[in-house]
Amino acid sequence: MADNQSLESLVQALRCLPGVGVKSAQRMAFHLLQHDRPGAQRLAQALVQACEQVRHCSLCHTFSEQEVCATCADPRRDQSLLCVVETPADQAALERTGAYRGLFFVLMGRLSPLDGVGPGDIGLQRLFERIEAPDSPVRELILATNFTAEGETTAHVIAQALKQRGLKVTRLARGVPVGSELEYVDLGTIAHALVDRR
Amino acid sequence: MADNQSLESLVQALRCLPGVGVKSAQRMAFHLLQHDRPGAQRLAQALVQACEQVRHCSLCHTFSEQEVCATCADPRRDQSLLCVVETPADQAALERTGAYRGLFFVLMGRLSPLDGVGPGDIGLQRLFERIEAPDSPVRELILATNFTAEGETTAHVIAQALKQRGLKVTRLARGVPVGSELEYVDLGTIAHALVDRR
Repeated sequence: MADNQSLESLVQALRCLPGVGVKSAQRMAFHLLQHDRPGAQRLAQALVQACEQVRHCSLCHTFSEQEVCATCADPRRDQSLLCVVETPADQAALERTGAYRGLFFVLMGRLSPLDGVGPGDIGLQRLFERIEAPDSPVRELILATNFTAEGETTAHVIAQALKQRGLKVTRLARGVPVGSELEYVDLGTIAHALVDRR
Repeated sequence: MADNQSLESLVQALRCLPGVGVKSAQRMAFHLLQHDRPGAQRLAQALVQACEQVRHCSLCHTFSEQEVCATCADPRRDQSLLCVVETPADQAALERTGAYRGLFFVLMGRLSPLDGVGPGDIGLQRLFERIEAPDSPVRELILATNFTAEGETTAHVIAQALKQRGLKVTRLARGVPVGSELEYVDLGTIAHALVDRR
């Protein structure tokens, strides 16, 4: 494909997508050019528009086209509850449960020293500023970072930093998932469920 | 994300890529917006440029920015050999071997009745026209479609159609891959290698 600079550039550009290597990028480029040029045009437009329009909500740091996102601007939300999540996808999962009516703070990442992600790279400073503001209505901080090594670390660091400030800090309950049979649940989960029984 | 139309459109647009569902598309959109906006801009440009520039070579039907691709235009190529492949990626694999100096014809697909891909949807008609042209220098047609059910079907259909025309039609050899131990090679391959021994 030495004479085909545009195709080569497209394959290279597609590799900026997470989880896409040379082979996948080639397959994607061939598919778009052969079967779905309108889709490729739409994708190009959507990329440009999203890069122009999407910024971060000044309160909760999630993606938003407005200065303040719809969730933060909703007056029916319980202002005293603040739930910390890693990504907008995690926030969406909590929202879909319908069981939470407080506000969110989206870190847009997690602490991961091995990957070079420190406290300065995620929204920790903004979170602390928001909580410590003199007029802050927040009474309880719910840590809903993932239950992975990085997520647990992030939760631990936030909990430690807020320990002395008289704020109630809670973590999502660990336990047996709904619909599961004990026989097939991993031992760590059962042990946690035993300790945290109520 | 009800208030976030641009993000929603981007997620939808990313789903035109093969093998990308809702979850992957979300992950890609979040990654681009959070970590790689320059990459997203480059991708948008590359998509637009490729859609504008890339068309099909009028001789071999592969992707090309010129009317005739560099391979077809190369006078040092053996004009009497024509190798039929399914995709430009297959062509590239054959080129990398350095063992072939003839020309190519790229079907841009394979016969797959179950997916509704018939003879009219791939470049069969153009292939036959090219071979049957009165001044055609082609003396041997090498069928290099994949060794899958669809690839074999495609090869069979082409071979049948060209049977009466006095053209030599060959197929890539089936046999034991280089570097493999017989013990671990599948039986169908060994059986073929036995029948085609030389």
